[in-house]
Amino acid sequence: MNILSRLGFFSIKWGKDHLLILDQRQLPIKEEYRELRSVEEVSEAISTLVIRGAPLIGIAAAYGLCLVPEPSNANAFQDACSLLKSTRPTAANLSRAVDRMLSRQNECIGYDNLLEILIEEANKIHREDELMCERMGDFGNEIIPDPCRILTHCNTGVLATGGIGTALGVIYTAFFSGKKIEVWVDETRPVLQGARLTAWELSRAKIPYKLITDNMAGHLMSAGQVDLVITGADRVAKNLDFANKIGTYTLAVLAKHHDIPFYSVAPSTTFDSDCPDGQSIAIEMREADEIKKIGGSQVAPPDCQAYNPAFDITPHELIDGIITDQGILTP
Amino acid sequence: MNILSRLGFFSIKWGKDHLLILDQRQLPIKEEYRELRSVEEVSEAISTLVIRGAPLIGIAAAYGLCLVPEPSNANAFQDACSLLKSTRPTAANLSRAVDRMLSRQNECIGYDNLLEILIEEANKIHREDELMCERMGDFGNEIIPDPCRILTHCNTGVLATGGIGTALGVIYTAFFSGKKIEVWVDETRPVLQGARLTAWELSRAKIPYKLITDNMAGHLMSAGQVDLVITGADRVAKNLDFANKIGTYTLAVLAKHHDIPFYSVAPSTTFDSDCPDGQSIAIEMREADEIKKIGGSQVAPPDCQAYNPAFDITPHELIDGIITDQGILTP
Repeated sequence: MNILSRLGFFSIKWGKDHLLILDQRQLPIKEEYRELRSVEEVSEAISTLVIRGAPLIGIAAAYGLCLVPEPSNANAFQDACSLLKSTRPTAANLSRAVDRMLSRQNECIGYDNLLEILIEEANKIHREDELMCERMGDFGNEIIPDPCRILTHCNTGVLATGGIGTALGVIYTAFFSGKKIEVWVDETRPVLQGARLTAWELSRAKIPYKLITDNMAGHLMSAGQVDLVITGADRVAKNLDFANKIGTYTLAVLAKHHDIPFYSVAPSTTFDSDCPDGQSIAIEMREADEIKKIGGSQVAPPDCQAYNPAFDITPHELIDGIITDQGILTP
Repeated sequence: MNILSRLGFFSIKWGKDHLLILDQRQLPIKEEYRELRSVEEVSEAISTLVIRGAPLIGIAAAYGLCLVPEPSNANAFQDACSLLKSTRPTAANLSRAVDRMLSRQNECIGYDNLLEILIEEANKIHREDELMCERMGDFGNEIIPDPCRILTHCNTGVLATGGIGTALGVIYTAFFSGKKIEVWVDETRPVLQGARLTAWELSRAKIPYKLITDNMAGHLMSAGQVDLVITGADRVAKNLDFANKIGTYTLAVLAKHHDIPFYSVAPSTTFDSDCPDGQSIAIEMREADEIKKIGGSQVAPPDCQAYNPAFDITPHELIDGIITDQGILTP
């Protein structure tokens, strides 16, 4: 069963001389695709969250390098790589994809068909991610009971990957395999990826869900309304500690307190073998205005200071396992 | 030390023939006081959240009854009482204050100076609340170390009471007694009382604070950035389980996990002796649009369902104590 084609929407597509992406900032109100025609446009789309999601920005960066005007110019190509890498520091997939493209460029720098080789490599990165999503979905589906009320955080679906997603991909797989699934969607402040993106995907897929504010998860768990918590991961350390969207750690503590299984879902590309544990993962700090303003509205005093870490670290002791494309890892 | 006068702002003041109130819907952008000159105007201000906070709306209702044109007309007075009570049916303080005014009116209905007697009673309700806030502040200050990084939720200050507040009143007392205090302010979705009101109060009081989204609390605790958690309470059961703004329970679980002291602050009027435990407290459910729309912006798909409990229950096992105007109760 090809779930992705069944869903009828996509987040990214290569278009011969441009990259076509769904503008995620317009969701859930408008479904607008944009054509990106330079590495600068791709870089800006990543840093302004027009596209986000660890695997997806890796794929976008790879395609972005196919838009460098002279790919055989080593300096220009290197500059494009640096520009793309500087956009988002926490996600492992981005620098991995860029490094992979760079090494392909190095290998083939004299070739006439260098651009075609690069496009082929980016396509490969994209297809590999799609396949990994399918595999994670299948492995993950094994631990989903029927029926199941699943709580999830942020967006980890089609809008975060090159396929059906990581955590949301497992939910899709379980649902389309016929299980009775209900989803609790954390709105995921400050950027509201849950309310804007996950809710939109689930609406489109006609999977039953209810939106909640992030601070309601504990209450739902204590009321026996949550059977399983499942999230993505932005970087997984060697000991299975992992970084993910801010709020994930709180969910893991709550799940442990209520004896509810907690799984993270991440493709092999999210694992960082240079990273021994969670303490060594750098956490991206973002601007105060992301919290102080919502839509056009200012919701805090103008002189208000805000603290805005984009991610937190969940230690492996709190989780039941990490669902990967190779199988399920347990701490 | 009179902290309230030192702060230089207030939420409510009686003005001989009118009630002066700070329009909380304009905060934090505009500080606009409004004169209310009829019981209908007071009633509308309460129901449209121009003023909110359980103790504060009780005080406003009491003053509102001093604006009935002929207070000796038993029917007219009774109608005014019913109108005020109908604005926010769940707030205990509101019906308590209205009943107290009604019984005073009944006692003195033949008196020439009935209006003065009513104003005196409303003033008494106001002053009693102010005094209870001071006492909670003093008792609470005893458990605040110096220095202390305090995390708080929702708004429990001048804007919620007739005095310096409950939980925020303790923070004011500790700060103005010379302790080095830093506050982490939960924005408190969905209505954002933390971002809009508590941040505004702390800005005005020049107390150092940082705003966070509700899902950041766990991360801050695990990073050793929180010394104490302190919240208000909307209703306290006999066994010290209590209802408070949604998200409070999650904070209590997190505090327990990280071995961080957690206190709730509530005046005697918040204790419900008819309520044996948290299970018997009814939780008010509110509309989905409170989550789906922020300011003018729609943040979720139009067909999205949302679950929106306004409160949650924190069991007494998770807390270190409840700070009241009579002293500190421990479970």
